[in-house]
This record gives sequence, structure tokens and C-alpha cells, in this order.
Amino acid sequence: MDYTALSQNIIKKHSFLCVGLDTEIEKIPSFLQNEKDPLFEFNRRIIDATQEYAVAYKPNVAFYECYGAKGWEALESTAKYIKENYPSIFVIADAKRGDIGNTSKMYAKAFLENMPFDAITVAPYMGEDSVTPFLSYNDKWVVLLALTSNKGADNFQYHNEDGIKLFERVLAISQKWGTINNLMYVVGATRADMLKSIRKLVPDHFLLVPGVGAQGGSLAEVAKYGLNKKCGLLVNSSRGIIYADNTENFSAVAGQKAKELQVEMEKHLAQHKLI
Amino acid sequence: MDYTALSQNIIKKHSFLCVGLDTEIEKIPSFLQNEKDPLFEFNRRIIDATQEYAVAYKPNVAFYECYGAKGWEALESTAKYIKENYPSIFVIADAKRGDIGNTSKMYAKAFLENMPFDAITVAPYMGEDSVTPFLSYNDKWVVLLALTSNKGADNFQYHNEDGIKLFERVLAISQKWGTINNLMYVVGATRADMLKSIRKLVPDHFLLVPGVGAQGGSLAEVAKYGLNKKCGLLVNSSRGIIYADNTENFSAVAGQKAKELQVEMEKHLAQHKLI
Repeated sequence: MDYTALSQNIIKKHSFLCVGLDTEIEKIPSFLQNEKDPLFEFNRRIIDATQEYAVAYKPNVAFYECYGAKGWEALESTAKYIKENYPSIFVIADAKRGDIGNTSKMYAKAFLENMPFDAITVAPYMGEDSVTPFLSYNDKWVVLLALTSNKGADNFQYHNEDGIKLFERVLAISQKWGTINNLMYVVGATRADMLKSIRKLVPDHFLLVPGVGAQGGSLAEVAKYGLNKKCGLLVNSSRGIIYADNTENFSAVAGQKAKELQVEMEKHLAQHKLI
Repeated sequence: MDYTALSQNIIKKHSFLCVGLDTEIEKIPSFLQNEKDPLFEFNRRIIDATQEYAVAYKPNVAFYECYGAKGWEALESTAKYIKENYPSIFVIADAKRGDIGNTSKMYAKAFLENMPFDAITVAPYMGEDSVTPFLSYNDKWVVLLALTSNKGADNFQYHNEDGIKLFERVLAISQKWGTINNLMYVVGATRADMLKSIRKLVPDHFLLVPGVGAQGGSLAEVAKYGLNKKCGLLVNSSRGIIYADNTENFSAVAGQKAKELQVEMEKHLAQHKLI
């Protein structure tokens, strides 16, 4: 999927919502626990109930890895289910990978070739040759960490050389490795005040913004400072949607929560004359 | 395993060799390709042939992930095989993980709880709360990226605030999160000239040094600048050992290559009066 197709889906659905699939056995409704693949069965129902309001899904790979080989099967089934049933939806492996070139190549193969993900989150610490192997696929994306939503972001991401913070250097240098068609950035919603200056460095790139909801970020602030002339935002919500209810009614409630965010997003898109 | 136990193994074996298990189907001898689990069968033979000369193994997780659920089974079988048969050997998941706290906790569970790894490599970009969940296990370790062996290390790791490079800041700040009993650092062998100044910041910590062999690092240089009064080094070699031969004789040749490195390490340990 390229920039234009992703932007068109946003305009069509009046939504820039990404639903995070941080699926934990302990948190899913008890009636699903005895299914053969409870993680996938939960995800499938969440996806069916929310897809009308979402343009992207983001399985958080750690939550599948911790169940070993079975978890990987659930991850793969989830990605396949989305692409087979809702092919216009963008699917991000939230994996935070990154290693020397020959190793990043294997991670890229795992997620972008052997599984049908459109994108993978990548950590920038190891630099260019750790990122570029993920950029060698047509219509596949790197979502590079720039400024993250957690407290620990303060430890290193603001390390300042001659007025340039590390995350700003990541934005400036990494732009040369890809294009707006295959590279986007993670900027935490808890750092919405920084979005204004970040937009000066990357006016056109898509930004993936986690941290709205459970982590405390404000959608209105993110929209105010983050929207660009083609939208250029994917805002993620995980726990606030998928765990809003844990009865047999969970998927309907998740759908309702997704809809509430979509309605709010529609308002921001209209205010910015994008719809 | 704690610092003392790891140091004692080194002194006992006259070796600080870590064997990297970057196992690829395409590169393993053809007679193993039809085994039910070729990756594991290859690893098992490599481990049996090299364990006399090694104190650690380091499966590179990307190489297993790219085979999906089956790859994860091979990874798990490999870690179990080492700990069941050679319990004094240190086993590192080279996974380069790191995410917000609740997610790092799941990665830690995957590798340090559900699989019997002693340690996991972690990327520092997201800071304290992305690293500490891995430090909450007794006798388990974080191997934190400091200065990596690849070319891309130049992009960000030298970002310099008031004379302090990013990798130096990582070393300085992260020391407060753990102890020499649960935290070690990755320093690439291709940066051996930097080991002298790194040893001033972390005189006692173990350093995991990749990049000897295929990546061009020199063991003599690494030993000269990196050895401390308890050894404090694990030097990794992957391709130079495991792919030294691809006939039916591959494991014997791998054993020979491991022995050659061990003999060289023994010389350095003696020169530094550690044995």
C-alpha cells in the first residue's frame, strides 16, 4: 500500500484510527479461553466489529511471542485474516526490530515477506544498515521510532548535539533512507507539544501516534499539531478499545469505542478541511 | 547465572568464547535438510562439537523468526538443549528487543521465563522503563546495546552532547538500572579502539563483543583493551565457526574452529594473569 492509497482510505472512512491488538490471554473474555486459538478468535471478533471505523491494525508482537510457537501462529492468522477480509486496511507489526544488515534482512523476511504485514516498527539505534533492509520491499513500510510515548524517552531521545536532539537527528538523517511512500515515524501522543516542531522536519511523512487513551495522550492535541495536508496521521488506541468490556458483548463494545474515536477524528478532519 | 559463576566458567574453560547460532536453512549441510527440525538438528551437532571450547551460545532470534512458528520451536528446543545438557553454559537470546514497560514485560516473559535463556540483548533507545522489566529476574541478564559493530553505528551512537557521546550516555545512565550481576553491554569488535575509554566507564561489567571474524574485528585488540581483572568479556563468533564447512564433517570442523579461538583466548587470559 502506498501513501496515496493509505490517504484515500482515511478520507473514505473519515478515520485515521489504528487499533492496537495487544492481546493477552488473561484479559480476554472467559468464554473464549477454551477456543483452539483464543488469541486469534478474540482478534477476529475485534477486527470484524471495529474495521468499519479503523484504517489500520497494529498487533503488538511481544504479546504473541510470549506464547511461543502458538503465539506466532495467532499473529500470522491475525495478519492473514485482516488482509484476506479487509485488504484496504493497513497492518503494522509493532515489533521494534533492528540489527546489523544481514539480521534485519531476516526480520524483514519474517514480517514483510512470510507474513502479510504492510509495515513494521523499527528502532533506530543501530543506524542506516539496520533499517534499510526493511525498505527494500515495494509498498511495504518502516515505522521508525522517533520520539516515543513512555517516560524513558527522556533518557536518550533528547540527547542534544548543538541544539539538535537525538530524535530530531533520527528524523533528519533517516529521511534520506526512504521516501514518504515507505517510511513513517512513531511520535508519542504524550509528546503532542513536540508535534509542531516535528512537523517542520517531516511535513509530509505519516506519523504513527500511540499513547492516546491508557497512556494519557489527547487526540485533540495530536490532531491540532500533527495533521498535515493529506492527514499524515495514524493514531493508535489499544487497551481503550479492545478491553473496554470483557463479557460476551466485548466486540460490540469495542466497536462502539472505535466508533467514538472515529467520530472525533471525523470532526478534526473536517476542521482541517480534509473531508 | 551470576557474575561469579560466569567468571568461574571462563577461568575453568580457559575461554571467553560465545558461539553465535545464526542458523539458516540455506546454509546448513544438505544431508540435514530433510530432518523434521533441521535448524535444531544443525544446532545440536554444533553445540555438542563446540561446547568444550565455549562458555556461551547466542542464537540470533531473527534467523528463527523468519521461519514462523516452526522457527520458534527450533529456538526453544535449542535453548532447552543447551541448558539441559550443559547447564553451566550461558545462553543469550540475541533479540534486540525494547518497548514501553508493559510490552517489554511480555518480551521478558517470552525469553527469560517461558524459554530458558540466561540473557537477552536489548536496544536502549526507549530508555529506562523499556529496559528494567528485563532486569526483574534473579540470575538473568540484560545485554544492552552500547556501541555496535556495524557501519550504521556512526549515525546516532556518536551523537555528542557536551563531549558525551550517546553510547557513553547509555553506559553511564543504564548502570543505575542494574548491577554487574544482571547487566552487560554490547561493544562491537570493529570498535576495539574505543574499548579503552569504554573500560573507564564500565571497568567491571561484562562486555559482549560481536564482530570478530566475518565482520573484521581483531581478537587480540579486543583482549588488549577489553579484558578486566575478572576477564569481563564474552567474544562472539558466528559464521566463522558454524559455517566453516558444509559437508557431513561440518560439526567437527566447527569444533576445530572453536578450539582455535579458545586457544587464542587462553593465551590472552594467561598474558593478563587471569589463568
